[in-house]
Amino acid sequence: MTRQKLTIVKVGGNIIDDLKATQIFLDKFSQLKENKILIHGGGKIATQIAERLGLETVMVEGRRITDEPMLEVVVMVYGGLVNKKLVAKLQSLNCNAIGLTGADAQCILAKKREKGSIDYGFAGDIEKINATQFNFFLNNNLTPVIAPLTADKNGQLLNTNADTMASAIAVALAPIYEVNLIFCFEKRGVLMDPDNEDSIIKTINKPSYIDLKNKGIISKGMVPKLENAFQAIEQGVSKVIICHAENLLNNIGTSLTL
Amino acid sequence: MTRQKLTIVKVGGNIIDDLKATQIFLDKFSQLKENKILIHGGGKIATQIAERLGLETVMVEGRRITDEPMLEVVVMVYGGLVNKKLVAKLQSLNCNAIGLTGADAQCILAKKREKGSIDYGFAGDIEKINATQFNFFLNNNLTPVIAPLTADKNGQLLNTNADTMASAIAVALAPIYEVNLIFCFEKRGVLMDPDNEDSIIKTINKPSYIDLKNKGIISKGMVPKLENAFQAIEQGVSKVIICHAENLLNNIGTSLTL
Repeated sequence: MTRQKLTIVKVGGNIIDDLKATQIFLDKFSQLKENKILIHGGGKIATQIAERLGLETVMVEGRRITDEPMLEVVVMVYGGLVNKKLVAKLQSLNCNAIGLTGADAQCILAKKREKGSIDYGFAGDIEKINATQFNFFLNNNLTPVIAPLTADKNGQLLNTNADTMASAIAVALAPIYEVNLIFCFEKRGVLMDPDNEDSIIKTINKPSYIDLKNKGIISKGMVPKLENAFQAIEQGVSKVIICHAENLLNNIGTSLTL
Repeated sequence: MTRQKLTIVKVGGNIIDDLKATQIFLDKFSQLKENKILIHGGGKIATQIAERLGLETVMVEGRRITDEPMLEVVVMVYGGLVNKKLVAKLQSLNCNAIGLTGADAQCILAKKREKGSIDYGFAGDIEKINATQFNFFLNNNLTPVIAPLTADKNGQLLNTNADTMASAIAVALAPIYEVNLIFCFEKRGVLMDPDNEDSIIKTINKPSYIDLKNKGIISKGMVPKLENAFQAIEQGVSKVIICHAENLLNNIGTSLTL
């Protein structure tokens, strides 16, 4: 049996924060003909709203420390402001979008991250993706638009990394669909030279990734993104691409293979 | 053919604003065994967040003037903060809630209210309820939890009155279900004497409503609520009850009949 295609797209906060870039991205996303899921960030807007509310944003290794007031901000911004704007825009582009967090329709169950050397606060680690529920939406011509929020079994909302969420959803749906996972952001791919947008590394496999990491070419926030991506491929995802949001349809960017 | 029962509950902002009252209400709501839909307010929290962001709330005849900054606040608060907290709590109570605005899954189409003598800004008037979509969720054991937000066909989000939304959804689903519409708030019903919580008017019909309105016993915000309610009954809704959120299950409150 040939599995249907499913494209899962993660779009980063630096695109979402820019009205024009968001419009270009959504135009392209709505043109994807196959089944599709969108996962969005929104950290930059959350930081702005937090500042206006007098709350300081503290990031550790690219992750937000989420105390209770900050949780309220991310729930408002990711689940409300960003998610609903994206959904409404997609609807106007004839894409039947439905905004979701992990809490909605039991899509994703998470648990609060235990305090280690760092207390991330209300940060959620994914325990279970409800593939049946996602499949149900997709089979009924709905396009899930997912905010990076989850809840635990006690109904506690949790801030959850959008890259991790995208990979986990991709892995959970890989037994049912032929899944392409695309990380869209404001750069043209993984770059040999961060200051040269033309220095895209077209293909990275596991050995070359380790080499590039050892040489310090791949560093910082790109490391967890790629770790996530390789895990997804190892667990059945067909293809992972990292590209600029503008290049969603032509796939110009970095392809990952095992 | 006997139609299935559907209970549509609107819960007001003064309950939602109170953690304890919300918990009591959700416990009861989750115990409703029939198909159910929840529509919530959140105006009081929106006003608080607006104030913290330096925005002044202007109300005219009980309706919020929604300029662009205020629209962002209500989208954050209704669509994010309030909606997602309610969904997560209901999930922990074994109610398979799914948070929606009118924009999600094309549930409700609205248009921006035209400027009359008052410019309400981004206020939405409902044009069409997607009964098929609501029916689809209900048939699949999902409980829609609806924030008072809609979008127009151009993807513009709009602030929409929750009472009106509840009535419109009730009317749209009345051909499919036997619909009970319950308005839950912080008072025990329509009161003869606003200072005496025991002075509940148990039943109001259309003639007695007109009489009570003429005598000034029913006034202010209660007038549009009751107008909405009577319209709903005239258009096929089986029963309308106005009661305290605590009395959702025992139906102690004011019943409206034609």
